[in-house]
Amino acid sequence: MTKKHKSALSVKKGVKEVNSLNEKSVSKFKQIKKNTKSVEEYVNGIKNGEITVLSQAITLIESSKKEYFEKAQEIISECLPFSGNSVRIGITGVPGVGKSTFIETFGMHLLDKGKKIAVLAIDPSSERSGGSILGDKTRMEKLSAEKNAFIRPSPSAGSLGGVARKTAETIILCEAAGFDTIFIETVGVGQSETVVNSMVDFFMLLMLAGAGDELQGIKRGITEIADLIVINKADSDNIKNATRAQAEYQNALHLFPPSESGRNPKVVTASAENGSGISEIADLLEDYFLFTKKNNYFYERRSKQAKFRMYETINEELKNRFYSDKKISNKLKEFEQDVLAGKISPYAAAQILLN
Amino acid sequence: MTKKHKSALSVKKGVKEVNSLNEKSVSKFKQIKKNTKSVEEYVNGIKNGEITVLSQAITLIESSKKEYFEKAQEIISECLPFSGNSVRIGITGVPGVGKSTFIETFGMHLLDKGKKIAVLAIDPSSERSGGSILGDKTRMEKLSAEKNAFIRPSPSAGSLGGVARKTAETIILCEAAGFDTIFIETVGVGQSETVVNSMVDFFMLLMLAGAGDELQGIKRGITEIADLIVINKADSDNIKNATRAQAEYQNALHLFPPSESGRNPKVVTASAENGSGISEIADLLEDYFLFTKKNNYFYERRSKQAKFRMYETINEELKNRFYSDKKISNKLKEFEQDVLAGKISPYAAAQILLN
Repeated sequence: MTKKHKSALSVKKGVKEVNSLNEKSVSKFKQIKKNTKSVEEYVNGIKNGEITVLSQAITLIESSKKEYFEKAQEIISECLPFSGNSVRIGITGVPGVGKSTFIETFGMHLLDKGKKIAVLAIDPSSERSGGSILGDKTRMEKLSAEKNAFIRPSPSAGSLGGVARKTAETIILCEAAGFDTIFIETVGVGQSETVVNSMVDFFMLLMLAGAGDELQGIKRGITEIADLIVINKADSDNIKNATRAQAEYQNALHLFPPSESGRNPKVVTASAENGSGISEIADLLEDYFLFTKKNNYFYERRSKQAKFRMYETINEELKNRFYSDKKISNKLKEFEQDVLAGKISPYAAAQILLN
Repeated sequence: MTKKHKSALSVKKGVKEVNSLNEKSVSKFKQIKKNTKSVEEYVNGIKNGEITVLSQAITLIESSKKEYFEKAQEIISECLPFSGNSVRIGITGVPGVGKSTFIETFGMHLLDKGKKIAVLAIDPSSERSGGSILGDKTRMEKLSAEKNAFIRPSPSAGSLGGVARKTAETIILCEAAGFDTIFIETVGVGQSETVVNSMVDFFMLLMLAGAGDELQGIKRGITEIADLIVINKADSDNIKNATRAQAEYQNALHLFPPSESGRNPKVVTASAENGSGISEIADLLEDYFLFTKKNNYFYERRSKQAKFRMYETINEELKNRFYSDKKISNKLKEFEQDVLAGKISPYAAAQILLN
């Protein structure tokens, strides 16, 4: 970040004392109280791979307090030049498909090969459901005990856009801390998979065999953005079904246009339980990254994503500002009713609201 | 439109004399010069099903002149209560798939059954390509000679959003003029099929047999919004291939989640040349509309679309206003470069531009 950028953001130095707290933010406060390091201390700690410092900096990113937000922005911009050296892998699938177990098994395999792994999650439902589905570290017991693995639950507050921003910024810090393989986990039921797809280099869809119905919970369109479909739980009695499902999906994918990456999506079977298929998937990923770095798609995709995030952030904020305007929000429902009743055309209604 | 709406739109009565014209708009002027009818004359003419008046009113919709725009808005709002009594059918497919011939054959079949047919087109490429691909009336010679058929080329000026608005407004006028079957034709290569899908009750994808490659030109995702896939040109030597393609696609569609309509998409073969499959498609459509009107999906979809168009229009206009701001557009490229060079995070750049 140049000086021009800094002054434009009008970043305040230092973190003010937090004197007044409501009950809800007490636990947050306990976490953040320790966060009184300077920006330089944070950045150096992160660059040295100190997990505690990394964790605290991410807590700053997740905070809704203005001064923490601004401090976080400074840390991010200092870390930016040291970020990017990783592969970012999105993983989605309905609850019950075995995402955690898969990431644990796959992660342990990658650790053995000398990788450093961060597992992040995007789960906008976590707040509503009163507890993060994806946030439970105990789900990945083995992985979370490893010093080269870092697991961070989904930020629970805010809109999908907010969660997306926080996750994208967390990726930057994790990369600056030396993590070279970043998993972004999500449940593929809402819009979150589109958001995840906008920040990863590779998108993996986990599925179960079972002739069609397994997709019931998955939004249309996910299969089309997947770089790899893994039929999980392909073990014991299930192997035959899984192999049949693999053939069916592989066949169905043939009917879609070729992927922009130059590598068409594959369908494989795997068992996170007994480890079958895991090393094949690792090889497949390695091959994909080699190939797409060579044909430049890897870098083009990242550039596109960065631009997309800039424009998307602007567009979202423009909408927020408009719709949160008191005068507008009062009129909005009224016009919506008039449009639905056919009293006014949608375009005329929009025009009046805009004026 | 209530009085409140009218005064808010501050509609000017009457059409001013057009005194100064640049060369380019001369031909437009010739068309519009005849359009000096009053709003009431337009509305009555349309309601009487007078094709010439309908055509002239659509020309007003397509005009970029403020006074014509405002007059058009008045006509639309007067026609609104008489609109809606139709089925709106979207048709897409790559160039060469035979859309025109199909619409002609299918349209003649529907005319025989007593329907009144309007064929509109959304083709944002028509301006760039120097002539509308879809605009050529001579493509549908038989249909355009029929008094119960109305064919209107794509409005050639403006953005996709603008073309969408004009088409949606043209639908209203056509319905008020008594057309009960509206076709919206588009080439499925850009974003236009999403726009079409937002204004039709049924979406039809035309394809050719030929094992996979036929989808090359079609954007990913189109197959997922189709209510019906027609394998066209299923005649003479091609019947076997078409039947095989039908089975393959039908099989592939099984792997997707069920459609919200309650009727899962079907794949059929047809020949616009020899008429095979045409009456089956007509039956299929009739059944679909009966079914979705009974389960209310038909009406819910239209309500959703109307709301979507209101919000979409607002959101598009918010973006237009922001990005067309001189100060912003000067800075934008600069920040884009900084984001791509990794000098600043996309979120920080967005924040600065917004401030």
